[in-house]
Parts: sequence; structure tokens; C-alpha cells
Amino acid sequence: MQITDLLFGRPLATSDERAEHIGPAAGIPVFGLDALSSAAYGPEAALTLLIPLGLAGIHFILPITAAILILLVILYFSYSQTIEAYPHGGGSFTVAGENLGDGAGLLAAAALMIDYVLTAAVGISAGVGALISAVPRLQPHTLEICLVILLLLTVVNMRGVRDTGVVFLIPTYLFLGTLLVVIAVGLFHTAVSGGHPAPVIAPPKLPPAVAAVSLWLLLRVFSSGCTAMTGVEAVSNGVMAFRDPTAKNARGSLTVIIALLIVLLAGIAALCRFYSVGATDPNGPGYQSILSQLTLAVAGRNWFYYVTIGSILLVLALSANTAFADFPRLTRAIALKGYLPHVFTLRGRRLLFSWGIYVLVALTGGLLILFGGVTDRLIPLYAIGAFMAFTLSQAGMIVHWKRHPGPRSTVRMFVNGLGAFATGVTTIVVLVTKFVEGAWVTALLIPCLILLMVAVNRHYRRIAEETACHDPLVVTNIHPPIVIIPMDRWSRISAKAIRFALSISNEVQIVHVDIADVDHGDHELALLWKEKILEPLRQAGLPEPKFEQLHSPYRTILMPLLDYILSEERIHENRHIAVLVPELVVRHWWQALLHNQRSSLLKLLLLVRGKQRIVVINIPWYQE
Amino acid sequence: MQITDLLFGRPLATSDERAEHIGPAAGIPVFGLDALSSAAYGPEAALTLLIPLGLAGIHFILPITAAILILLVILYFSYSQTIEAYPHGGGSFTVAGENLGDGAGLLAAAALMIDYVLTAAVGISAGVGALISAVPRLQPHTLEICLVILLLLTVVNMRGVRDTGVVFLIPTYLFLGTLLVVIAVGLFHTAVSGGHPAPVIAPPKLPPAVAAVSLWLLLRVFSSGCTAMTGVEAVSNGVMAFRDPTAKNARGSLTVIIALLIVLLAGIAALCRFYSVGATDPNGPGYQSILSQLTLAVAGRNWFYYVTIGSILLVLALSANTAFADFPRLTRAIALKGYLPHVFTLRGRRLLFSWGIYVLVALTGGLLILFGGVTDRLIPLYAIGAFMAFTLSQAGMIVHWKRHPGPRSTVRMFVNGLGAFATGVTTIVVLVTKFVEGAWVTALLIPCLILLMVAVNRHYRRIAEETACHDPLVVTNIHPPIVIIPMDRWSRISAKAIRFALSISNEVQIVHVDIADVDHGDHELALLWKEKILEPLRQAGLPEPKFEQLHSPYRTILMPLLDYILSEERIHENRHIAVLVPELVVRHWWQALLHNQRSSLLKLLLLVRGKQRIVVINIPWYQE
Repeated sequence: MQITDLLFGRPLATSDERAEHIGPAAGIPVFGLDALSSAAYGPEAALTLLIPLGLAGIHFILPITAAILILLVILYFSYSQTIEAYPHGGGSFTVAGENLGDGAGLLAAAALMIDYVLTAAVGISAGVGALISAVPRLQPHTLEICLVILLLLTVVNMRGVRDTGVVFLIPTYLFLGTLLVVIAVGLFHTAVSGGHPAPVIAPPKLPPAVAAVSLWLLLRVFSSGCTAMTGVEAVSNGVMAFRDPTAKNARGSLTVIIALLIVLLAGIAALCRFYSVGATDPNGPGYQSILSQLTLAVAGRNWFYYVTIGSILLVLALSANTAFADFPRLTRAIALKGYLPHVFTLRGRRLLFSWGIYVLVALTGGLLILFGGVTDRLIPLYAIGAFMAFTLSQAGMIVHWKRHPGPRSTVRMFVNGLGAFATGVTTIVVLVTKFVEGAWVTALLIPCLILLMVAVNRHYRRIAEETACHDPLVVTNIHPPIVIIPMDRWSRISAKAIRFALSISNEVQIVHVDIADVDHGDHELALLWKEKILEPLRQAGLPEPKFEQLHSPYRTILMPLLDYILSEERIHENRHIAVLVPELVVRHWWQALLHNQRSSLLKLLLLVRGKQRIVVINIPWYQE
Repeated sequence: MQITDLLFGRPLATSDERAEHIGPAAGIPVFGLDALSSAAYGPEAALTLLIPLGLAGIHFILPITAAILILLVILYFSYSQTIEAYPHGGGSFTVAGENLGDGAGLLAAAALMIDYVLTAAVGISAGVGALISAVPRLQPHTLEICLVILLLLTVVNMRGVRDTGVVFLIPTYLFLGTLLVVIAVGLFHTAVSGGHPAPVIAPPKLPPAVAAVSLWLLLRVFSSGCTAMTGVEAVSNGVMAFRDPTAKNARGSLTVIIALLIVLLAGIAALCRFYSVGATDPNGPGYQSILSQLTLAVAGRNWFYYVTIGSILLVLALSANTAFADFPRLTRAIALKGYLPHVFTLRGRRLLFSWGIYVLVALTGGLLILFGGVTDRLIPLYAIGAFMAFTLSQAGMIVHWKRHPGPRSTVRMFVNGLGAFATGVTTIVVLVTKFVEGAWVTALLIPCLILLMVAVNRHYRRIAEETACHDPLVVTNIHPPIVIIPMDRWSRISAKAIRFALSISNEVQIVHVDIADVDHGDHELALLWKEKILEPLRQAGLPEPKFEQLHSPYRTILMPLLDYILSEERIHENRHIAVLVPELVVRHWWQALLHNQRSSLLKLLLLVRGKQRIVVINIPWYQE
């Protein structure tokens, strides 16, 4: 078993793809993870901004959460409709592109690409934030831990959808179970104590207020809290991954996910309010996440606490997986339309779009390094992409209903319109409030990405036009090629090459470069030529190849060969020159370093210096 | 003009090689640079070890220099003979390998490879040391400057021998001129003042003695000073680069180089003694090189000083060029014998063995980074490789004279024997005195390198045995291949592929992968098939290709194709399957990122999963 098989799993055949589809039970952890896990960082992000208000800040968390939940409900109805209308996958790129035109599609695509990279980065760094709350002495190693988790996620993801699905189930349900227990017990204590529960372990005292409340601050808190919603699109994007009936299964999953998210967000907000739990400075020494404080307050520091924190860490880190699942699908969809290199459409050994994963990992790793692995510094970049995509998707749906009028299309148009309006307003709020903090980076990156995609598309279209063929096949002048075999010594590889050459043409030339004074078996070959090659062919009455000996006073082999081939091409107008290049296939990758470089260089030189009429034929020889 | 042409020069044709040969005038700077420039760091290295002796230390520099000069004279006579006996290039690898056997050759090769890497590193870092003496505030940036110079040297060297030769002439003669002036003027003042010249600018006061003299210390000083000799081999190694009569021209150059080196070393030692100039701590704040101190003492800080220091910097940095010229030749010689990957024998666009340069640059850069760019820390690693190679080369020469007895072969044998003895003793002295300081690294690296070379050789021999063919060509069963053309749409590229396929076989299969629900012009192709391809062929009475439509419910293209090709291979026993893969050749390298990945992947998959009977034919298509 090879090390790559061990790490990434055995290669999958295409026929295995159906088995990679997931059922409704697995749907919640696979596609809900991003949304559900955002309960762990959305409230945190909002409360962090409320720190300057001190104790008073906590009073604002309930109304702000209420506003977020209303937006969430609107999004839910809006996206249910999208799933129904696009049962083959209704990502923003598709919906906006099909209904609003390519420009809108590209805008959504750029916004989404940025969003997914940030999903991965925020997920991982939030997971590590949870870990550091439990084990504070790990704080100096935040970035390193983030990168190790990114590496592990990459390895797991290179194994494919199904294998990652299995990794998901337990931590997801553990996360939901423990958090719901914390909320239930906490609310029970609150009710019993008449709204003033006694914490088992008191949360850190809130710092004194250093600022007064303002509309501006509340808007910023709202837009930070909105990061809790960024996972909503995942389900509609991944409808195709569900079993039949896909739309129904997907909508069921979406309903459960949104309902759970609402319970979690509302519960956390209420507990923060009643237990007076506020955010701590994520860059400060005593940093502790909201969920850690809440669990300590409700349950104390015991095995339950560690299970809770452990499941939060796992689920947050795994939530980055939504990006791993969706980013390659997105780049593939864009590449299929010719706006990204076609390499994103290729599937690797585990039926994944490997290049999408490589690019995602590189970008996520870069971001984590740039921002030192701390979530809070990434959040200003975050929600803007997601909400821009939401808005475009909903706006696209309005046009969709207009074009496909049905029984309830006016109501549907209204629902999507409300969604578009709400997310549009949120996009503007997020952009304005977060602009200086970093949203300008996103605002700058989006047009750059769009320009890149347009340039790629233009190139592909030019090539397509150039190679377009409107005439029928030209059937005149079809002559066998002149075959040239570079040969350094008489070997089983040469024998194979000569046999192949004779099978395709009567005009075969064997070319040997004579390296003047190096005793390289040169004279030997001239002797062997007659005995080993010419005689048997004569006896069989087969056409005789031409034996050409090139002299190379400076001992180079490639240049005389190249000159000869190019001159043959010039001499024989309208003929193809086929150059046979043997390629040794070794058993170990490191042995490949020892072979074929001259062949590769010859091929490259022929490609660069040759014209349309030179054709390279690779003759593989397998090591025994 | 492309940026690569601007940086590395236009590509050279092989016929340009003769013009790259150098005359006797250019021979001194090209091959003497390493030897001559070592006058700038040899005495420095010796005096650095004498620091603990204070003023008393300087008294020992004269006798030690005398010992070094005696060794140098022995080496001179010994190597003159080598040049005469090996007019085609008598590097230690060749001489030791041919006369003492492959084992000795490999030992010399390993020692020399290490030596050349160190030559490059020591040259550059010594050059930067000279610069820092003149402009002390650059000291914190030592390493960065070293790396920038390495980069510049690489760029210059990638342009080829001739262009670097031109860069050499002026600084070499400037260096020789200014240093000889300093020595002459200094000795004149010494003579006039009765042995006690007054310095124009007094050198830093020598620190008080903190240690007593010992034989051990003197041996260490001697072995450090021996680094001044490491460049001696360069001429005999590069004889081939001289014009005819090569041996005579080369020997002339060697004579001039050694004579100049003797004058420089003796002069510097004398001046140090008379002006009481000692080394300063290279890691300390007030570091100043010996030559800088001497020039200041003799001439003061004026334009002459800056010209001198500037030429020293340049010459030292350029001396690294000896490594650039010889290392690739050495690795090529080793690769020709099958002990290093054959890639080292390939010539790049400027007729250089590019891979040797890449490896040299990587290793030198690594060393500079590891040692922070300070010469002194590299010197313990240095002389051992060079002296081991010297010893093996001289010992090989003894055997050579034994095998080729001539008129004066006994005398010659004695001269080379004396050289072998002297360098052998020096090797042991250097190894013992420098062992703890770092020579153990060299002593460890040499066997590792040898093991690597032996492993490479064993692999090449196994492959050679496996592919060896003792039988004549088998002329039965030569059938044209079954040609498979993967085709996605009707284009000029497809047309070219079909025409080529028909020219080599009557059994052509056109395979189209039908991507279920993506409207990719699929139905179009089925319609076009008859009209554009089948009809013209029928009318011309040519064989009809088979049109095979593969269904791919999961939208993958490669896997169904691969499965189909492999199954065809299984079905048709004893037949070759030729797969035609079109390759788009674009005009700019970055455009290459947008194309051919699927072709490359298909080729790779066919190579890995295929058997002996699958052959890949590349059909290039050139962008207009």
C-alpha cells in the first residue's frame, strides 16, 4: 500500500460516484455545519464590539439577535424557493448568472469565492479560539495550531465527500446536544431563580463602560452578528449531493438547520443576558470565548465542559469543510462557463476537483498567516461577500419567477423580493460599517477577480474562434508521416520503437548522434545496425529504414538532433514528421528524477521550435 | 525581445561553441580569479586565528606564509605536469578515476563538489566582508547582500562563458594593479623608514595577548592559510576552454597566476608584519579586513582606497565564478560516467549545463543562509575538500607516469609524488586541526555523496541491463496501431488529428464523451459527424473511422475515456493502441496555465495505468 493511498484513500472509479451521494440524515451535518457552527462565532463577534459599553452592552444583545433572527427567517423562505426552482444546484453564481446576466453571475462568483475562503479561515480560527479558551497556555501557538488543522482538513478532504461525512456525524450531534443542554439547563436555572441565576463558575467581570451607545455602534454589532448567517447558502448550492428526491430532501435539511440555528442563537443571547456574560478581548491575555464562559457558568469545569468545548472546536474546524465542499464546485461551475482555467473542471483520484482544493488551501493558509490566526481580525472581511451573493441570488430569483410564471409566482416573487431587499440593505450596512476595518479589501478584491475571470474568458473565446472549423474534413494528401527515431544504442526500447515506426510508415529514419571522443558504444551501433536491424528486415521483405549518423564535435546530443528534425521538416513540405520519443516508466517516483529529462527537453524544443507538421509519439517502456 | 533574452541573452546555437573558447589573455582572469582572489581571504583567515596572541601573533605570519608558498611551488610543478598529460582537461575526478579506479574518482568528485560550493560561498562572503570594511553600517545586512550577489552572479552566468569573461577583465586587472601598488608603496616606505613605516591611518590597536603560542595553534593557522591555494586546480580542470595549443596556453596561464599569487601573499604577509596589522573579530562591531587596514595604512582614505576596496569586492564576488564555470563541468563529467542524473549532461539555451548551475546556486544559497554570510565560519569546511582532491589527483599522476613511461617519467613521478605527499600531509593537518570546528561536516558529507552516486549508478546499470537487447529485431506481427482520438467538438485541431490518424492506420476510433446535461455542443457533434467527417471520407473511398459516444452521467471526461482506452487495450491483444492527444501551443507562457491540463493528465494516467502497448501521440496546434 502506498503512502498516498493511506493518506488520501485508494483512487475511486467514476462508478463510485453514486455511492458518494448523501441521505437526509447526513445532510444536516454535511451542509448545516457552516450555518450551525456559526452560532459559536456570530454572537461572539457581536459581543466583542459591545465590550466598550460594559455591562450595558449585554442588554443590547437581545434586540440585535432578534433583528438577525428575523433576517434569518426571511432568508429561509427565500432560499427554500431557490432550492425548489433549482433542483440541480442553485448557487448564487448559477441563479444570478442565468437570470441577471453573466456580469451579475461573475459578481456573485467573485463574492462567493472570497466568502468560501473566509469561511475556511474563520471556521478554523474560531475552532482554535475555542481550544485556547479551554487551554489558555496554547495562546502563543494560535497560528501554528490553525495551520495544522488546515493541513488535517486538507488530508481528510482529499479522501472525498463520503469519508469526510463519516468524520462529521459524531462531533456535530455532540455539539448540538451539549449546547442545547447548556441552553436548557441555563434557562431552567434562570426561570427558577426568577431571572438571576447563580453561575457555577462566575464569568470574568465585565470591564467598565468607556463609551456610550450609538446607532453606528449598533449597526456594526448587527453586521458582525450577521456572520452567523453566512452558511445558509450551502444547502441550495449542494442540492445535487442529496439523494432523490433531491429538492425535498434538501429543503427538509434546510428547515431543520435553520430551526436549530434560531434556537441556538436565541438561547445563547438570552443566557448572555441573564448570566451577564460579555466578550473578552481576543488579543488580551485572559481571552475566553462566550460559549466557554456560558458553559462554565451553567455547568462548571468538569468532563461536560471539556466535552462541550471539544465538540465546539471540532465542529468549528469541520465547518471549514463547507468551503472545501463548495469552493471546488463553485470554481468548477465558473470554469465550465470558461471564466476560470479548465483545470478546475478536472477530477482527481478521489473524484474531487483537486485544483479547487489546492487553491482554497493556499488562499486560506495565506489569510491565516496574514491575520495571525485570530478570527476577530478576519470578520470585517467576511459577511460582505456572503451577503452580496445572497442579494444577487434573491434578485435573480425575482427575474426567474417573472420568466417562469406559475400558480403562486407573485407570492414567490414577493418572498424573494423581501429577501433581496433585506440582504441588500444588510450588504450596504456591512459594507459601510466594516469598510475601514477591512471590508475595503473585499470591495477591492471583487473587481480584481472579475477582471481576471473576464480576461480568462476572452482568451478561451479567441482560441475557440481560431480553432473553429466550418468546413468538412479535407481528404486529399493523406500520406503516412516520415518517422524519425533518435537512437543511442541497440536496446529493447529501440526495438519497440522501430517496430512501432514500421507499423505506421514505410519511411523510417533512425538517427544516431555520434559523440566524437566519448566511447559510448558508437562504433558498436554502426556494426550492430546491419546485423540486428537491416538483415532481419531484408529477409522479411520489409521496407528498410534509413540510418543517419549525426556528428557532434561538442558532444551535445539534443541540438544536432533538433537541427536535423527541423531540416527534415523544411525539406519535406506537406508531410508530417513523427518523432518517436521513448519514455521510461520507473517504479518509484524518485527514480523518475533520473530519467526522461532529455526526452522531455526534446519534446519541449520540438514544441517550441517546430511547426504544425511535427508530431511527437511517446513510446512508453515499463520497468520490470 | 523577451525578458528571458534580456536577462540571460539570446539562445545560442551549438555552432557558436567555438567562439566561446578563450585566448591566453583572458585565461588569467577567467581561471586565475579563484586563486588570485584567495590572496584576499587566505591571510585574513590565518591572522584571525592569531588574534589571541596579540602583537606577538603577527610575528608568526611570515614563517607560516613561507610554508604555504613552498607548498604552492610544489603544487605548481605538479599541476603543470597534469596539464601536459591531460590536454583535454585533467580535473581530479578524471585523473584519479582513470588511474586509481572509480572509487578514488568518486572520492575526488565528492570532495570537489563540496569544494566548489564552498568556493562560491567563501568568494561571495569574502567580497561582502571587503565591502563592510569600507562601509561598516552595512554590517547588519551581510546575509542579504551575499544573496543579492549570488543572484546577480547567477544571472550573469546564465548568459554563458564569453559574456562572463568580459565582465572579468577590468576588475581583475584593477585588483592586481591596486594591490601591487599598495605592496610596492608599503615596502618602499618600510625600506625608507628602516623597517618602521608610519601608517597614514593607523590600524586598530591589536588586542592584548590572551594565549601563548603552541604548535597546535600554528598548525591551525597554517591550515587556514592554505585556503589561499584552493583555486590552483581550476586551470587544469578547464584546459579544454583554452584555444590551441591548449596545453601550452594553459600552462602559461598557470605560471603567471602562481607567480602573481606568490607576490601577493608574500607582500601582504610582509606588510602585515611591518605595519603591525592583525585581524579583527569578524563578528565584532569594529570589523575591518586586513587588506582594508593595509590600504588605509599605506595610502589613507581617499579615492584610491575606494577603488582598491571596490575591486577587491568585485574580484572576490567574481571568484565565485570559478565554481560556476567548473561545478557544472564536474557534475557533467560525473553524470557522463553514470554516477549522477543524466540531466547534468544536458545543455541549456546558452550552451551551459544549466542543472549544474541550479544545484550550485541552491547549495551555495543554503550555505550562506546557514552560516549567516560570514566567511570565517565557512573556512573550517573549506580546504579539506580541495586538498583531498589535490592529493588524489597527484597520486593518480604517479600511476599515470608508471603506466605511460616516457623520457623523464621518473623525475615527473617524483614531482607528482612530492605534490601528493605535501598535499596529503596538509589534508591530514587540515582535517585534524579543523575537525571540531566544522571539517567533520565535510568528512561526513563526502561518504554520503559517494553513497548517493553509487546508488544512482546502480539504478542506471539495472535499467541498462533490463533494456539490453541481444537479439535481432523481431519482424513478425507488425500491424498498424488502433488509433483512438478523443474529440470534444469539431475543430481545426480535430481535423488535423483525424487526418494524421488516417495516415497511419485504417482502424481509427473517434471517441466523444457525452456530458449528460451540460449543453456542450454534444448533439451538434453527432450531427456534424456524418456531414463533416463521414461523407467526405466515403466519397474519397477512404476507410471509415468508428464513432464511439461514451456516456458520463457524472460529467467526468477523463475517467470514461481512460476506461475505454484500457478496455480496448485488453480486447485487442498484441496490438498497439495509439492515443492522439492534441496539444495547444500558446504564444505566452502564462496562457499555458489555461490549456492542456486535461491532455497532460490523460497522458499521465495512460502512462501510469497503461501497459507496454499504449502509445501517446502528441498533435501540436500552434496559436496563430
